[in-house]
Amino acid sequence: MTHSSGPDEKVLLARAYLSAVVEPPAPAVIRLIEEHGAVAAADLVAEGEFPRDVAEEVEARRSHVSGARLLEHAQRCGVRLLGPEHDAWPGRHMAALARATDLGMEKLVAPVALWCRGTATEIFAEPSVALVGTRAATGYGENVAAELGYGLGTAGVGVLSGAAYGIDGAAHRGALAGGGSTVAVLACGPDRDYPAGHARLLGEIAERGLVLSEYAPGTPPRKHRFLVRNRLIAALAEGTVVVEAGLRSGAANTAATTDSLGNPVMAIPGPVSSANSAGCHELIRSNGGILVTGVNEVLEVVLGVGKAPEAGGGTPQRSTDGIDGNAKRVCDSLHFGRARHVEQLVLETGLPERTVLSCLTELEMSGLAVFGDEGWARCKQ
Amino acid sequence: MTHSSGPDEKVLLARAYLSAVVEPPAPAVIRLIEEHGAVAAADLVAEGEFPRDVAEEVEARRSHVSGARLLEHAQRCGVRLLGPEHDAWPGRHMAALARATDLGMEKLVAPVALWCRGTATEIFAEPSVALVGTRAATGYGENVAAELGYGLGTAGVGVLSGAAYGIDGAAHRGALAGGGSTVAVLACGPDRDYPAGHARLLGEIAERGLVLSEYAPGTPPRKHRFLVRNRLIAALAEGTVVVEAGLRSGAANTAATTDSLGNPVMAIPGPVSSANSAGCHELIRSNGGILVTGVNEVLEVVLGVGKAPEAGGGTPQRSTDGIDGNAKRVCDSLHFGRARHVEQLVLETGLPERTVLSCLTELEMSGLAVFGDEGWARCKQ
Repeated sequence: MTHSSGPDEKVLLARAYLSAVVEPPAPAVIRLIEEHGAVAAADLVAEGEFPRDVAEEVEARRSHVSGARLLEHAQRCGVRLLGPEHDAWPGRHMAALARATDLGMEKLVAPVALWCRGTATEIFAEPSVALVGTRAATGYGENVAAELGYGLGTAGVGVLSGAAYGIDGAAHRGALAGGGSTVAVLACGPDRDYPAGHARLLGEIAERGLVLSEYAPGTPPRKHRFLVRNRLIAALAEGTVVVEAGLRSGAANTAATTDSLGNPVMAIPGPVSSANSAGCHELIRSNGGILVTGVNEVLEVVLGVGKAPEAGGGTPQRSTDGIDGNAKRVCDSLHFGRARHVEQLVLETGLPERTVLSCLTELEMSGLAVFGDEGWARCKQ
Repeated sequence: MTHSSGPDEKVLLARAYLSAVVEPPAPAVIRLIEEHGAVAAADLVAEGEFPRDVAEEVEARRSHVSGARLLEHAQRCGVRLLGPEHDAWPGRHMAALARATDLGMEKLVAPVALWCRGTATEIFAEPSVALVGTRAATGYGENVAAELGYGLGTAGVGVLSGAAYGIDGAAHRGALAGGGSTVAVLACGPDRDYPAGHARLLGEIAERGLVLSEYAPGTPPRKHRFLVRNRLIAALAEGTVVVEAGLRSGAANTAATTDSLGNPVMAIPGPVSSANSAGCHELIRSNGGILVTGVNEVLEVVLGVGKAPEAGGGTPQRSTDGIDGNAKRVCDSLHFGRARHVEQLVLETGLPERTVLSCLTELEMSGLAVFGDEGWARCKQ
């Protein structure tokens, strides 16, 4: 991480200390830092001089944490601390959390710091999309997540996810395969390979993207930390795509947070018989989620209409495209093999003779009809 | 068909004649009938006394059709003519077509008559839903169509469709299996078993529901007639569900007509990798289509919220439901086998000791935690 202009050691120590003292979200401590600065806030906490709301957030651990030891430990495992004092801090994204806090959503408060494994903090300056979903994904869901990750990667849009099994893993892998950058936001210290089966994947992400967390190195994962973590996934992206999710899922929580932050929520449809798509369908039905079926539609939402690359294909064309309704009627009544007389066509189509005749001319010019000794027939194209 | 109060023979003859002279849609002839009545309108057409716009619609066949011969033929094949003069005429639904015509949508004009095979015209008085989709359906699509047909059938809601292979057939079969009534609207005479492979199905529909068409007995199916027919499917239902459809399909046409008539359009989602669901997704994305995943959601749309029977299941419940955030945090830090001290729990959760203690009491009362000689442990429920 090249902190072209970074804070001095005192600030790093203060942020490290405070980030490990609190169990996020910690709105009172964030307010204390805003008021006094990180260094003074850390001193106040360490010395026990703080208002009652701060006490709730710090008294359990304030005497048990050493910022210096944490920074040493972090350095040993290749993790660095990123705070608002760094140029690389994702300030634009974190401002959305601050606004939400101001609106009374205290649980969406910004983190004290971000602990980063990897150096690609330039990711924060580029657009990125969160791809989230269930761990117990189907093959369908994993395929779609990998395709989306790949497509975003090749389009130069970052992929954010949570490194879990299932959708998260497929999304990260797709992004890496597409040559794109990807960020894993963990619910434990960024040095912990969680889940264990994704140790190698996390290593690759750290090498080419970022593995980050607001939890200090060494912090184990806990259930509630996943929900708390989700706000960072929602905040760091321009929008969230739920690929597969049950009716009650962490992904639905990330989607709700995305919505609270004013960012677009997208969802991938799936079979109505799949419980793993029920959460996606519910988002589309009741919560304003945008149905998306592929990467171009996602790019349209997050970058704006027209910014997405042209889709191949488009609507299929037919040989009778461009000829009008009456001519189509006449064309329907022609046979490929057997020729027909104009009188037969008049009776069958119910069109006046002059209309049938002008339609036949039109069809002949389009190469759809041919006139021979026996009458009119349809042409193979 | 018990036409408790039906029109006299002259009116039947006139409607039969006019319905076979025109190739629908025929707005000028409908206007002529409205102005002069069916009998006088038929006389004017037969005698060649009509304005130019009527000429376009009648001159090809007016000298070749006999109403009497048609009615005889119809009787022989068990088909009866239903016109606006019959009590059983679906006037409420046809009024929607008339309104659309008044608004300039001439192609959505009402039919001259409906030729019916079967007697269950009371169907028109009950709510019904159109289930439409591609002929080349997947197993998924056919299953969903059959399930919806069955569910609507058991709920006493009629199922309208077009008797084609694929989605249509599955929808009709489901409705019959559910003991419900179903209506097949054909793009050919109602005496024609089209498609041939559905001859037996059409027989069952005629026996327990209705096979109907605006095309006189004997009329063969033609491509353009399917699109023209679709407006009747859209008009006769309270709403249309597109189960599976490609980007360019007859079902999309029925959906557009449904929307023009002011009725709700619903669509079933499917895998994004299925071309057969692309039309459904497009309806939801761009055309105001309502995503529905099952019969209860369809009933909610067409009958109104709260009218649909209660869905079984609902959101899954968990043992930690109803306990608050801090208690959940503490609960996460408890182990099932190994007991832990309060001090450990304080450090790990980052919560003040008094909060941890009150949470433990709450968890103990909920049966989630137990206190023993060694400290606190999680309880199996």
